[in-house]
Amino acid sequence: MEDKILLAHGSGGKLSHDLVKQNFVPLFDNTFLNKLDDSAVFELKGRLAFTTDSYVVNPIFFPGGDIGKLAVCGTVNDLSMSGAVPKYMSIALIIEEGLPMSDLKRIIGSIKKAAQEAGVKVVTGDTKVVNKGSADKLFINSAGVGVIPPGVEISGSNARAGDKVILSGSIGDHGIAVISQREGLQFSSSVKSDCSPLNKLVAEMLDSGVEIRCLRDPTRGGLASTLNEFAESSRVGIRIEEANLPVHEVVQAACELLGFDPLYVANEGKLAAVVAANGAEKMIEVMRRNKYGKEAAIIGEVVSEHLGRVVMKTRMGASRIVDMLVGEQLPRIC
Amino acid sequence: MEDKILLAHGSGGKLSHDLVKQNFVPLFDNTFLNKLDDSAVFELKGRLAFTTDSYVVNPIFFPGGDIGKLAVCGTVNDLSMSGAVPKYMSIALIIEEGLPMSDLKRIIGSIKKAAQEAGVKVVTGDTKVVNKGSADKLFINSAGVGVIPPGVEISGSNARAGDKVILSGSIGDHGIAVISQREGLQFSSSVKSDCSPLNKLVAEMLDSGVEIRCLRDPTRGGLASTLNEFAESSRVGIRIEEANLPVHEVVQAACELLGFDPLYVANEGKLAAVVAANGAEKMIEVMRRNKYGKEAAIIGEVVSEHLGRVVMKTRMGASRIVDMLVGEQLPRIC
Repeated sequence: MEDKILLAHGSGGKLSHDLVKQNFVPLFDNTFLNKLDDSAVFELKGRLAFTTDSYVVNPIFFPGGDIGKLAVCGTVNDLSMSGAVPKYMSIALIIEEGLPMSDLKRIIGSIKKAAQEAGVKVVTGDTKVVNKGSADKLFINSAGVGVIPPGVEISGSNARAGDKVILSGSIGDHGIAVISQREGLQFSSSVKSDCSPLNKLVAEMLDSGVEIRCLRDPTRGGLASTLNEFAESSRVGIRIEEANLPVHEVVQAACELLGFDPLYVANEGKLAAVVAANGAEKMIEVMRRNKYGKEAAIIGEVVSEHLGRVVMKTRMGASRIVDMLVGEQLPRIC
Repeated sequence: MEDKILLAHGSGGKLSHDLVKQNFVPLFDNTFLNKLDDSAVFELKGRLAFTTDSYVVNPIFFPGGDIGKLAVCGTVNDLSMSGAVPKYMSIALIIEEGLPMSDLKRIIGSIKKAAQEAGVKVVTGDTKVVNKGSADKLFINSAGVGVIPPGVEISGSNARAGDKVILSGSIGDHGIAVISQREGLQFSSSVKSDCSPLNKLVAEMLDSGVEIRCLRDPTRGGLASTLNEFAESSRVGIRIEEANLPVHEVVQAACELLGFDPLYVANEGKLAAVVAANGAEKMIEVMRRNKYGKEAAIIGEVVSEHLGRVVMKTRMGASRIVDMLVGEQLPRIC
């Protein structure tokens, strides 16, 4: 008989303790978590970044990752986008009764692996179990704390006319990988999620000396929503060139088949940056040396026209307004 | 037609932005959240406490509180139990499609009110929406960061033989209030959840000068599980007296009716403390001056026998071992 998660694993009693002590604590072995107090305690100083995200992706396993890897990378990336060095994170599980224990262990293993790659410590957590039918297999929340090095000032509201817009690589891979897995679609070549921790890429970008104004990872809502956020928060216009947007061929084909626009499809290992124009070429060089920035490209610029709006010059030479995502293209993509 | 939450409210696109900008940001008006960057940025220094909990309570509204108040108090209390002054928190919502907008607004209002009472700032958040049937109305995760004043050293592993065990008030109120609401039970007098932020009580306890070794809020798993955690982490025995345990009459009656033991029923506004014996009486005086400590009582002591175990002297004069909760008494109580 296969081991499954029972309601009692979320009771706060003996089964909860056994689950945590046998499966979580040894894996994330660190003095903070080992104490099993209500809070993790650590020393930090300076400007801190603090963020949270919940993950409800369906299915929980997909090509290139799973909900555990996503929960780590998402929070690491959110911290990185404020220029912070990610340090500590929490993992809180909401499990549907009946989840196979082997699935949970596999996901905890992914969390460990992703946290190791990113160099963050999982120091506190929580496990809740809800009765069958009250959740869909597993939801994970992660929150994180990082330290922003002195002098770093990055915000979605810092873009200025003349700046260049950079994208770290191809768009749409995560969303198409998840939807393909969910719907059982087969494409001639497989699409993998780009789910990755970007903190080291960001550290190298900060080391380049090029002035970075805005950084954001275009997850839900896609690149279009991220650029609209920059345009709105900074009260500037943004102009991008379709011809410069890196989109993998199979993703483009899948989008055409499914009626999606890659600009609105979620990514989990990409970043959009606005940088000072005079350093843009140097920044691309720096980024391409990192495995997560190999396809980095300048995709557009910040302008003082059409304030608050993003306009794309299409391959045909026409201009079209790229709105923020309206409605929901792909529910439960992250 | 009543406004309801749609999948698109969790898309990361326009409806997500409108929901956040119209309903969340104005309510929690603070410069950290207002920037709408991926992370909140603030300055802190010293020993920090960091904690997380997810809330899946059913029903989401119950006498004495709702899931929003619970999410704030739970995290405020977890931080307080490490001796930290709670400073900043995150709120992450997982909403089932179709939740009435009025319910969400009511809960956001409760979050605001509880955060104000506790003096913590909600600085970052996340909203996910899952399709109907994939979650049960609303789950909330909150994470929090606090600062531990110099000299404060509180941990579940610090209890020593001879110390006194203190309880801040009556047990079982939260669990019985929720289960009564869920099952539509009517008792002659109503039971209200004790859900409250305990940070000010803890601050007064720290100011008393009495040495506090362990602090914990007995939520899931009840007082029995908390005392067992102390006994196990500190490698000591704990002896309590049933006659000294504050239990409201209606809670006792409900427990007898439903076959529960109040020692295992969840609380959300109580704390158990282990303090140096010579300061125990003074501590009780200090606690009783605070509205959340009015029924504070010394309920037992730490001993060097039956290491790792909790033993209760019953009203009949017999001794019985009080184990950690085994199985699940009341699922989805918090």
